[in-house]
Order: sequence, then C-alpha cells, then structure tokens
Amino acid sequence: MTQYNGSAYYLTGAKKLSLESFHIEEKPDHAIIRVYRGGICGSDVHYYFHGGNGNAVVREPMLLGHEVIGRVEKSPAGSLLHVGMKVAINPSLPCGQCEFCLAGVENHCKEMKFMGSAMRLPHVQGGFAQYISVEPERCIAYDDNASDEMMCFAEPLAVALHAVNQAPSLIGKRVLISGAGPIGCLIALVAQAAGASSVTAFDINANSRALALKSGANDVYDPASEALDLFRTAPGYFDIAFDASGAQPAVELAIATLRPRGTFVQVGNSKGLMPLPVMTILNKEITFKGSFRFANEFRVAVKWLESGKINPLPLLSSVMDSINMGEAIELAADKDKAAKIQLTF
Amino acid sequence: MTQYNGSAYYLTGAKKLSLESFHIEEKPDHAIIRVYRGGICGSDVHYYFHGGNGNAVVREPMLLGHEVIGRVEKSPAGSLLHVGMKVAINPSLPCGQCEFCLAGVENHCKEMKFMGSAMRLPHVQGGFAQYISVEPERCIAYDDNASDEMMCFAEPLAVALHAVNQAPSLIGKRVLISGAGPIGCLIALVAQAAGASSVTAFDINANSRALALKSGANDVYDPASEALDLFRTAPGYFDIAFDASGAQPAVELAIATLRPRGTFVQVGNSKGLMPLPVMTILNKEITFKGSFRFANEFRVAVKWLESGKINPLPLLSSVMDSINMGEAIELAADKDKAAKIQLTF
Amino acid sequence: MTQYNGSAYYLTGAKKLSLESFHIEEKPDHAIIRVYRGGICGSDVHYYFHGGNGNAVVREPMLLGHEVIGRVEKSPAGSLLHVGMKVAINPSLPCGQCEFCLAGVENHCKEMKFMGSAMRLPHVQGGFAQYISVEPERCIAYDDNASDEMMCFAEPLAVALHAVNQAPSLIGKRVLISGAGPIGCLIALVAQAAGASSVTAFDINANSRALALKSGANDVYDPASEALDLFRTAPGYFDIAFDASGAQPAVELAIATLRPRGTFVQVGNSKGLMPLPVMTILNKEITFKGSFRFANEFRVAVKWLESGKINPLPLLSSVMDSINMGEAIELAADKDKAAKIQLTF
Amino acid sequence: MTQYNGSAYYLTGAKKLSLESFHIEEKPDHAIIRVYRGGICGSDVHYYFHGGNGNAVVREPMLLGHEVIGRVEKSPAGSLLHVGMKVAINPSLPCGQCEFCLAGVENHCKEMKFMGSAMRLPHVQGGFAQYISVEPERCIAYDDNASDEMMCFAEPLAVALHAVNQAPSLIGKRVLISGAGPIGCLIALVAQAAGASSVTAFDINANSRALALKSGANDVYDPASEALDLFRTAPGYFDIAFDASGAQPAVELAIATLRPRGTFVQVGNSKGLMPLPVMTILNKEITFKGSFRFANEFRVAVKWLESGKINPLPLLSSVMDSINMGEAIELAADKDKAAKIQLTF
Repeated sequence: MTQYNGSAYYLTGAKKLSLESFHIEEKPDHAIIRVYRGGICGSDVHYYFHGGNGNAVVREPMLLGHEVIGRVEKSPAGSLLHVGMKVAINPSLPCGQCEFCLAGVENHCKEMKFMGSAMRLPHVQGGFAQYISVEPERCIAYDDNASDEMMCFAEPLAVALHAVNQAPSLIGKRVLISGAGPIGCLIALVAQAAGASSVTAFDINANSRALALKSGANDVYDPASEALDLFRTAPGYFDIAFDASGAQPAVELAIATLRPRGTFVQVGNSKGLMPLPVMTILNKEITFKGSFRFANEFRVAVKWLESGKINPLPLLSSVMDSINMGEAIELAADKDKAAKIQLTF
Repeated sequence: MTQYNGSAYYLTGAKKLSLESFHIEEKPDHAIIRVYRGGICGSDVHYYFHGGNGNAVVREPMLLGHEVIGRVEKSPAGSLLHVGMKVAINPSLPCGQCEFCLAGVENHCKEMKFMGSAMRLPHVQGGFAQYISVEPERCIAYDDNASDEMMCFAEPLAVALHAVNQAPSLIGKRVLISGAGPIGCLIALVAQAAGASSVTAFDINANSRALALKSGANDVYDPASEALDLFRTAPGYFDIAFDASGAQPAVELAIATLRPRGTFVQVGNSKGLMPLPVMTILNKEITFKGSFRFANEFRVAVKWLESGKINPLPLLSSVMDSINMGEAIELAADKDKAAKIQLTF
Repeated sequence: MTQYNGSAYYLTGAKKLSLESFHIEEKPDHAIIRVYRGGICGSDVHYYFHGGNGNAVVREPMLLGHEVIGRVEKSPAGSLLHVGMKVAINPSLPCGQCEFCLAGVENHCKEMKFMGSAMRLPHVQGGFAQYISVEPERCIAYDDNASDEMMCFAEPLAVALHAVNQAPSLIGKRVLISGAGPIGCLIALVAQAAGASSVTAFDINANSRALALKSGANDVYDPASEALDLFRTAPGYFDIAFDASGAQPAVELAIATLRPRGTFVQVGNSKGLMPLPVMTILNKEITFKGSFRFANEFRVAVKWLESGKINPLPLLSSVMDSINMGEAIELAADKDKAAKIQLTF
Repeated sequence: MTQYNGSAYYLTGAKKLSLESFHIEEKPDHAIIRVYRGGICGSDVHYYFHGGNGNAVVREPMLLGHEVIGRVEKSPAGSLLHVGMKVAINPSLPCGQCEFCLAGVENHCKEMKFMGSAMRLPHVQGGFAQYISVEPERCIAYDDNASDEMMCFAEPLAVALHAVNQAPSLIGKRVLISGAGPIGCLIALVAQAAGASSVTAFDINANSRALALKSGANDVYDPASEALDLFRTAPGYFDIAFDASGAQPAVELAIATLRPRGTFVQVGNSKGLMPLPVMTILNKEITFKGSFRFANEFRVAVKWLESGKINPLPLLSSVMDSINMGEAIELAADKDKAAKIQLTF
C-alpha cells in the first residue's frame, strides 16, 4: 500500500505553527489529493494571530487552509474521480440530510464540516499540506488547461458569488462595494460579470483602492473624501451595496448612500453589537441582508475560472513556498503590501 | 355659496392645543368632507407631547389626525365622488410624477403630502375637524352599510398590510410580532388573514398582550419569560418577525428567535443608532427590512374592512368627543389603559 | 407476532376491482396503520375507468387511494410515532438524496414513491385497505380532537396550497379559479385564507358553482355567461388565475381575463398539445406556471385542518363503506351528484 | 425661424414606399433631431411586406423606423438637452399617468406612443428621416466618443435586456436561446454579460448560427441535429430558455430541454393559437413568461453601449444609404444574407 507521508505546519495556538510529520491512512471512501497550491484567507490570518476565529478556539493541532487545489493521487472505488485529475477542493461538506440541506440552503447545515475550522471537535483539518485525504464530494474536477493560479480563487469567488446571489438582479444597477480587500474585489468582479452598470468601491487603504480599479471597479473613493457627499445626497445614489469590511463607519456610510428600496448585503465579519441607523433603513425601506459562506456557488466558481469568465489574478500579490507559511500569513495581514497570497506545496 | 365653518383644535407646540374657528374656502378641484370619526395614532401622541415628530417640528398651527372617515359634503365637478358618499380619507397624497411614483413605490414620493405632518411648510393639515377640504384622490368610497368604527382603522391597517407585504409569503409560516400596540395587533390580524400557521406576540405590557390574544395572536409572551428560551434555541423558531416596538431589546430578541434565512421587518420607530447583532444577521442570513407607511395598501385596507375580512374592533378602547381631544390623546399614550382611541366630530 | 390480515379491493384493469385478502408482513422500519378513512381523488377515478392514469398503466394488482388517515397500530423502534396516534398519511415519499430533494423541490424527486401510483414497477400500493405498512416519514401526527373528516382533506389541500404557493402574494388580489371541482374549491378556500380580496370561480357545472360559493368563492359564473365580457374588457380584471379544469376553453378564457403581468397557474391535467394564445401571454407579459403535486405543503395542510383555519367539509358529498368502492368511485366521477366522496375502512 | 425640410420614404401600403418631401414645424416643447442612422427591425420588415404588423394596419402615410440615433438640432427651452448632443431616440413614450405607468410597468401604458407604429390613428411617425421632431423625454444623451454604429443597437438591446429581466438571475445558469436572429443574438450577449455559465443557441439557419457564435453563444445547434437528444434527456438540461423565433417547434423543443422549475421567456412573435405541451409545463413546473418590448431598459442599453459592456457589431451586416430603403428592407428579410441592416440619413 502506497504511503502518503510528509510534514506540514499545524497551528497549536496564537502565532504557533509547528512543523509536524504526517502519515495519511488511506480510507476506502476517501480520495488522496496531492495539494499544489493554496490561498491564504482572512480567517487563516485570524486563526494564526489569535489561535482562533470568533467562537472557534484551536484546541488541538490543526492544519489551516481552505482554498486549495491539487491533483487526485488516489481515487476511491466507484468514484468518477480518477488519478491525475485536477481538482478544486470544496472546504464545505454539508451532511445532506438535515432540514437545511433538504431546503437547498446547505450553508446552514447543522453538521457542516468546514475544512480548517476549529468549530467542531475533533477539528476539521485544513488543506495546507502536501497530501490530504478528503471525501470525494469535496473534489470538483477542472480542465487540465485551466490556470491553477486562477482556480485557487475558487473558494473566495464562491463567497463573492453567494453575496451577489443575496441581492436582486444587478443588471443595469449602480453597485457599491465597501471594503476592497480580496473578497470586496472579487465581489466587484462578479458584479461586473453579473451586469452591473457601474461598480464603485470605498476603502480607507490606497493599496486596496488601486487593486479594486484593477478588479472590476469603475471608480474608487477614500470614505473620507468630500466627493462622497454626492452619493449621500437625497434620495441616495447606489441601488445595491456590499460590505466586505465589517467596519461600522463603512456600513453606516453605505446605508446613507443607498437609494430608497436599495439592498445592502453584509459579508464582512464584525464583533458584538454594531450601532446601525435603523430609522434610515426603515424610512428608505432598505433590505439589509446577511451573506454566509456559499452553497452551490462553489461549482459556479470553478466553472467561471475554468472558462476565464472573470480574472482574479490582479489580486494575487505573491506566491510563496509553504515552508514560509508564518511569514506568508503575516504578509497577508498587511493590506499595504498584499492582497491574496498563495502558498505552494 | 355654502359656508363650511366650525372650530377645531390646532396644535401650536408641546401640549398646546388651541381651539380656533375655521372657515373652509371652497376650491374647484377639492372635495369638502364632513368628518365623523378619527383614530388617534402614535404620531399624533408624539406631536402632542413633543410639539413635533422626529425631525418635523410644528412651526405653525396644525390640525392633527390622519385616520379619518366621513361623508362627501361637496364634490368637485367631474369627480366620481358624489354628495353623501361615505369615504375613508387617505392621508397620503403622492405627486404621481417623480421617479418613485413612476416606479410603483409612491410611499417614497419626493413631494408626498401627508396629512397632519409638519415635515413640509406650510404644514399639511390633518383631519381632526368637522369639515376638511381635500383632493378627491384622497377619498376612497365605501359601502354605506359598512361599519364606521371599523373603517376608521383603514390607515393603520394599510400600515400593517404594507409591513406584511415586505415579507415573503406567510402561508404556513410561524410569525412573531414584537410589540403588541395597535400596529402590532393589526399586523397579527393581517398575518392570520394572510395564511400564517401561527402568530406569537411579545410585549412587556400585560394589557397589550391581552389585546393581542383578541386580535389574531395564537399565543403571547412577556419577553422576560423563561419560556422564550425555547424560541431562542438553535437554529431558531420563527420564520418571519415584525417589530412594532422600536425597542432595541425587542429587536435583538426577535433576531435571536428567527430561523436561518428568516425575515425581520422593522415597523416601529426608534431614534439614533440602534446596536444590532450583525453577526447573527450574517450567520443566519437574515433579511432585515424596513417598512415605511404604505402605498396601494390603503385601498386594500378599505376593501378588507368593508367586507369584514378582518375585525379590528377589539383594539378600540374608547370613543370620545373631539372636544376632549387633549384628554383623549393623553389616554391614548397610556398602554395600561388604552389601545386605539377614536374621536367623534 | 401480531398479524395484520384483511381483504381489500385491488385494481387489476379498467373497471376491474378484485377483492383479495392480504397479510401484512411487519418490517422493522415500517409503521402499521389502521386506516379509518380515505378520500377518492380524480386520479383514482382515472385509474378505475381506464386501468391507468396518463402514462402509468396498471400492470399488477394495485390498491388505490392516497388521501387516507388512520391510527398507528405499530410503531417502529426509535420512532417518534407511538401506538394510538392519529396520523395523516403523506402519499409522497421522496428519496431525500437526489439533486431535486437537496434543492428543496422534493416533488421533482427522481425516485419519488407516490402511493397508489402505477408509474413504478412494482407499483407503490395505495392506502385503501384496513391496514397498511408505511415508512414512518409518511405519517404526520395530528391532534386527537381534530376532525377525521376534515383531516382526510390533507392531501388535496396540500395540492391547493402548493398551487397558491406558485403565485405571487394573494394579499389584496382579485383571484380567478377556473374549474370548481374539489381541487378548485380547495384553492378558493386557500386563496381566501391567504388574503385574496375577492375570489371568483368559473365552472360549466351548476352543482360545482354552488359548491364553490360554499367554499370560499365570492361569486361564480357559467363561462358561457355574457356577464364575463366585463372581465374580458381591456386591460383585464383578475390579478391571478388558477386552472383546475384542464380544459382548453377554460384556460383560454382565464388568460383573456387576466390583467397585464398577471399570473396563471395550471393545476388541472390535460392531454397532448393545448392550443394557447401565446401572443396574449407575450403582450400582457403573463406568467404561465405549472403546479405539480406538493412538497412541504402536506405538513401545512395538516396544521391548517387541525386548527380549523379552513373548513373543507362543504365539499364532502358522501361517506360510504369501502365495500362499495366501485359504486363510490362511479359516484365520484359524476359532477352533477358529487364532489368529494370518502370511504370508511 | 430655421426650416427643417427634406424628403423621406413614407409607407403607404404593402411594398409601397413613397418618397415625399416634409417640412417640420417647430413646436415649443419638442426637440428637433438630425437623424444620422437607423436600424431596420423585424417589424419594419413586416410593415413593408404586409402594409401592417399584427392588428396594426397602415391607414395613412407613415415613416418607418424606431431604432435611430442622431444629434440635437434644436432643444426646447428649459430642457437639459442642448444643441449638438448625441442622442439615442427612445421610440417608447408612455403617458406617465395611467395605472401601469404608476406601477412601474410603463411598457403596458394604456396610451403608449410607439414610434413607427400604425396602432393609433393618427399613426405615431417613425424615425427614418433626416430630421424628426420628438418629445425631449425620448432623447437619451450619450457620450460623443461612443460609437454610433453600436448605439444604434440601443432599442433592440433594450428588448433583449427586458427579456432577460423577466427571468430569474442568470448567474451560473445554463441558458438556451431558440432563434438566433438579431434579437436572439442580443439576448445571447446580454445573457453572457449577466453571468450565465453557458449560452447555447438553436437555429435552423446556418448563417444565424454562425452569427450567434460571434455574439455570445458558447455553442450552437441545428434543431434537427441528433445531438439535441442529450438536452432532451430527463430531467432536462437548461435552466432558462428564451425563444426569439416565435415558431411552435422551437418553443416545444425549448420546453422539452428545460429542467424542472426552469423558466421559458417568449420574445418572438407568432400568430393565433400555438399548441403547447401543457402537461410538460405542469409536471416540470415550468414558468412560461411573455416579454413585451421594454421599460427602463432603454437607459440601461444606452449606458451599456456607451461603456462597451457588450459589443453588438458582429450583428451588423451592412450599412446602406437610406435612399435605398426598399432594397435594404428586402435584404434585412433574408436571413441567409443579413442580420441587422443600418440606414444612414
């Protein structure tokens, strides 16, 4: 029996990455994936700096990473996967049996197994390792000629697609994105590809604004700019707004610039209670909607990246060897220097 | 030429009602209405106690009242109205020309003339007087045999209908109403009439809870009750919630009891920024939507009250002579003693 | 081990009901139900007269019946059902695993096991027998005090609820029902309970029209009546129409009476190609939508009948002993004499 | 006072174009437009060959043309238009006062004045003339640097946008277009720009299929091809279908290839009753919806063509001098030789 051995960084606490050797035991119903590449997500950064993410605290060594692609090294019997196929790994694995799975909203699955998350115990291990053993349903095959660099954006693109799917049709609409990090920029790309007439981005960081312009935004603003008064003037300017910042001032500003009956989609994470202008929401009859991860959008993301319907490569700041994972994560946390960092394994 | 003279209470400041004589000048394109009955709304109470409502401050003597019914005393030439017809007065008069009117969302009309409101100057006078002169479009005729007591609920019922129209279909759904004042109870009645499988009301006031039970609620709770833990248990209980309280704890509680992908409709007014659990909205993908006044729901309200599709009379606490307007408004402000008060003219 | 023996009528071909003894073998994961009552559906009538229904031809002896209620006689281990519970039997049993089940549209399940249907081989046996063995998921418990006569309408009520769920909100709308048999009348009841401002029924049969008036319709018409010209006048009258007749003239008439952007829901079965006024559909931008069986509406139907939210009893023409099944089915086929017939077992 | 004189072809009957001189009288509230370019539409072709279009018969000399662009020659006082501006002419002029205008569905306006249409008497003259006098609301200004050849597609693009707006979101969906004439190809372009994952076109004409491939379609098929069996296999293949052919076999085929709960949008005109597979629509719960002209999509079309969001130029077969109008229209009628023909004035 072939052996899949190697070593990988396990997170054991805040800023504690421990290089450990692993040995993958083959399971009859699992696929073995040779991971080639993985993107660092904001939640990986949180896990690294805080030893947890929200309520999820790392209680045992855990591999990070839920934006990975690779090739099938071993395929379980009877699977449509075969050895050598290029696959994007879907970090979501819903149970397929609970009321939410059966209602078509699998992102609310009661037994979700999300890779690289300390929510459950034992933790669901992430994908930042040379070999991983995964359920075949996680593996979405893609064309051998498609770009791995692009396909490595499948997971955050799925998040962006899901956010856009929470809004009404964007065709001919004026769209605002507040917060132009990787997710905000991917939403900008999706908004353009979904028919928006204009996409405007707000961000306090000049580097992020420059990136937004390369990723679908028609124009960008510093929220402190007086030019924004135009957007705030009654009855408002934008039809649909997405917040990918999680910052209260950004959310309040976005709501102030929406037209009556506009839609606001909250994608960016925040903490605790956020003071919101409820009377503006009421008077303008704004729809304020949360967007959580993604459901069937992962397959759409793979399809779009395969066909080149959108191009996320302007967001790729650096590709680094996974041996430098700590350094890479610290770089990913610095918006002045980086947007998306990919690791190679 | 017939004269329409009388005297009525004009609000001139906080708690200042001044009995003044009036003389109505006939206008060729207006109808004269002999007002018989008018309901006191929460905003009338606000105007009375504070000399204003939100940003609208009383700057000239103003008649209160926007829930009135009466008979046509004089009809403008060419109108379908004729003398003697019973009519419910729609306090909304949109311009019919702005972009919002032309988009079918007339409640966002840029030039709305809402009766008994100090928003514009000169103020749009209210309907608490024996005779009023109004644009004929405001007059919705109803059957002579229909109950005036019931028809006097047309305006707040339109508000409740509009709130329900902001939510997805209620058929077979579990509905929560937080805040069981007149608007909350009317929403309960509408929710039942719109196919809800169950309607639950929360209110801190025992009198309001008792009223909710008579007005469509299947069960009622004090928000302080431990019984609510059941509703709060993951993944939540209610499909759709309406807040008619405007109180932050009520809103936070309602959001906590909603199921993933549930809808929350904000109807109750509040002030300033309200701290909201944005991460709960995000994680459960809740739709938080504002509801502002009403649009074509006024005609539906008249139709429903005419046919007896719902019965709001349990909400009618007292009918008082308009000469006691100040006393009536103070009573209307006391939830322990009253829900809806109607004045006769 | 208890024995569940009896005799029941098996359909073996057109007009061939054969009384056969049966012996139910207990299965560890099935419940045994003592069936008390069952309604005869139009498809039972089709099976009886034609030895099949649409493409489904009876190829082995089959019990008819998919509108049955009873009591739990034996409950499988670990089930929430217990002996003596009153249950409505859901004839739908979706697989819970195919793409349609996982998308929340289980009525399109690829492996649906619908009771009393010859679509699959072996046929899925129906419920017209004193004892049946069914999967526990089919059993929806209801209150012991609820009326069995009413609860026996759960299945056709689910069909009516599903039809209404295919339309936009009925609140304040003018609704047309074409075809006032049991399904049409149940749609009328649901339309009223879902907030319609008016419900009008068209039927060529006087008996059906009389029944519609007792079941939610505000007014009824013979389609041949000249009074209908009013509804046909441009731009149309009704907001939403449901066809429960399957007859081309009825469909064409309904489309002619709809207002621009109205919705038409097809519920009644027909055969082959039906000539439709496509240019009217195009010019008025009508939404023409099919409605097939039901999904989660079965639970809503049980809940509504349990609480008495609607009352279908005016539709119940006769209750007959199941020993007279052939006679009962022939009576059910005669619209001049009967609407819904229930059998007792 | 400046004189706007010239000569233009007036249609007086089937195949009768009469070159007449005209003299435009200035009206204080109208703009004078120097028309530069106009596209020939299928309805112009119908008018030319049949002396009418559907129920609209030419009863007085009428200018054809409703896809025209030009420059403002004279602007009415107080208008935002000024002399020299490039404008696309919106052939729709709704009344802005009827119930449909006020409901945001102006394409159903009861008093619509559509250019180049013999529906009303006097006819609303078209735009195929060197100078036209039009209401300023018809004039949508566009950037001087934008391509006139592209902008001349504004009207048919608005039709395509409106068709797509009748469907649910196209993001990630498999889209079918049946009929790949200019409207079908524009729908293909819009579908791609609105996020479709794939766009497939069916057409019996090889020239049209070739054009579809240049205009957004990922693949094209002759409906007679056996390759279509794949799409017809249960449970169907496409999520959303648009028919731009008006041909019964095309419609029936499209419905056969849709997945359960798919949407079909009818755009192509037909005559009389069309036999449709109603039971397929019912069993698959297909939404069959009509799409009629356009509403606010005209502004979106101008915006998209201005910014180059889509490129319709592959559809432009020839540009001809308007002196050869008859010849041009006959060419436009021949799908083997032409798609869109533009005239210059």
